Amino acid sequence: MTDKIYVVGHKSPDTDSVTSAIAYANLKNALGMKEVVPAAAGDINNETKFVLDYFKVPYPEKLTDGTDKMVILVDHNEMAQAVDKLNEENILEIVDHHKIGGIKTGKPIYFLNEPVGATGGIVANLFEAKGVKISKELAGIMTAAILSDTVMFKSPTCTPSDKAAVEKLSKIAGVDPMSFGMELLKAKSDVSSKSAKDLLMGDFKKFDFSGVKAGVGQIEVMDLKDLEAKRGAILEEMTKMKDGEKLDMVVLMLTDVMKEASDLLFVGNAQAASGFEKAFAGKIANNSIYREKVLSRKKQVIPPLESAFKKS
Amino acid sequence: MTDKIYVVGHKSPDTDSVTSAIAYANLKNALGMKEVVPAAAGDINNETKFVLDYFKVPYPEKLTDGTDKMVILVDHNEMAQAVDKLNEENILEIVDHHKIGGIKTGKPIYFLNEPVGATGGIVANLFEAKGVKISKELAGIMTAAILSDTVMFKSPTCTPSDKAAVEKLSKIAGVDPMSFGMELLKAKSDVSSKSAKDLLMGDFKKFDFSGVKAGVGQIEVMDLKDLEAKRGAILEEMTKMKDGEKLDMVVLMLTDVMKEASDLLFVGNAQAASGFEKAFAGKIANNSIYREKVLSRKKQVIPPLESAFKKS
Repeated sequence: MTDKIYVVGHKSPDTDSVTSAIAYANLKNALGMKEVVPAAAGDINNETKFVLDYFKVPYPEKLTDGTDKMVILVDHNEMAQAVDKLNEENILEIVDHHKIGGIKTGKPIYFLNEPVGATGGIVANLFEAKGVKISKELAGIMTAAILSDTVMFKSPTCTPSDKAAVEKLSKIAGVDPMSFGMELLKAKSDVSSKSAKDLLMGDFKKFDFSGVKAGVGQIEVMDLKDLEAKRGAILEEMTKMKDGEKLDMVVLMLTDVMKEASDLLFVGNAQAASGFEKAFAGKIANNSIYREKVLSRKKQVIPPLESAFKKS
Repeated sequence: MTDKIYVVGHKSPDTDSVTSAIAYANLKNALGMKEVVPAAAGDINNETKFVLDYFKVPYPEKLTDGTDKMVILVDHNEMAQAVDKLNEENILEIVDHHKIGGIKTGKPIYFLNEPVGATGGIVANLFEAKGVKISKELAGIMTAAILSDTVMFKSPTCTPSDKAAVEKLSKIAGVDPMSFGMELLKAKSDVSSKSAKDLLMGDFKKFDFSGVKAGVGQIEVMDLKDLEAKRGAILEEMTKMKDGEKLDMVVLMLTDVMKEASDLLFVGNAQAASGFEKAFAGKIANNSIYREKVLSRKKQVIPPLESAFKKS
């Protein structure tokens, strides 16, 4: 056990996970905890690279083995999404915006979870509460996190608090939220250069629905047509993932951020298929169910799946 | 399902649970949520009655059946300690200061847990954060909660944040913390009029230590001698409770707040006894292990029991 404390987001890290880790580690440093460093629980995706490069913020180190590591979790609170081999007892704090996922600690810890669109805004408020000034760079990456997680305020997870945070932070960062947001979406939705596997793994999380083991990923694009050519290869990767990881189902949300709809790709066993159809009140056709107005995994995909599989 | 939302603490409510529920419901009302009401998850104990009477605050209603009730939990975050028949999905918020106990929700909720001595100080800070003025009455009951839960700052759970909160709150309430604290301790430790059952149930919580079902209670007195005459009857009640509730063990901390020590009474099966002895590095003699400097169930009794029963 070293004295180092890692601030780390979920596996298959997205922009909110990576930038929240960086910002919160900086807050801790400013408060005198010098041994706190940010980390990413996997490879940083293209959107996040764009954001860190844009604001000239160094990439955090990669942490994939949690053995004997002391950690502060941001943007997740479920062990299934955390760095592998982590000991629950070594979790010192949690700052998140997801459902509460059954974590247990031996001692009281600081745990702040708010039902808002991104961890970025929560961390920004903590700077304010502690009276610590937010630098231009950190304001920039937190702006990006909120715009990304709320799909530029379009996601149903978005709250007035997220909008207020972007208004404050974007001023400090010196960017126009809407034009910066469009650049960000372009960086995120550039699927042409990516393999089917990279597309599936870019934002992928595992869940346990009353014993049904599932993986649920999401790809956001400006136009679903951009993904048409890769659909077959993506389904193949989903099946490989399901078999390799011994999952009952893999779902991939192909989200059209302009049309505000998602094509929900599905592979899985019969029980899982019936639960999936129940959750989205439809029939699987050509490996998918298409749903208007579905943009948020957290708010519109996970809760109906949880209900569908719940043992009564 | 009614529109009413109950703010409620743990079963066998103590002063922090009851007063935090009252204060937090008041905060919610002040913020415009008129349908929020405080409740107590059981009968109010003598100390709490003393506190509410002292500051002329009405007793909250009693809530013992959580069926179809929407709730905000204060001072606990484990289903085992919550009102019976509660649906996890109907938990709207949690404000607490204990270890994280494995709760699961289907949606993101507000969950604030801080490693401090009492929920009272956390709620007081939330008033401040929201810019809501604390009334004299509420300041008084929150002062009492912190003094009670931290055994007048002597408990190892006490933090600088608890002391700072009492300093602020006691001024608003117009009481001297130390002399008020002594009155409070006297109210709490008046055991002469209580039955063995009332003594056991006054501050009693259930836990699950890796499958070992346990109940752990605490009685605080100014002098352990006050309890000597009732020891036999208390042990009988503990055995009755163990058998009636199908527990593996029942522990009761007889805490001498002046000597700052606890006599840890134990009844339980052989496996539980061996774990209990391991946890407190001693041999059970005359149904107990005596430990100097042990004052806090949360910090000094639950964690060693958890470790002792953990499957490696």
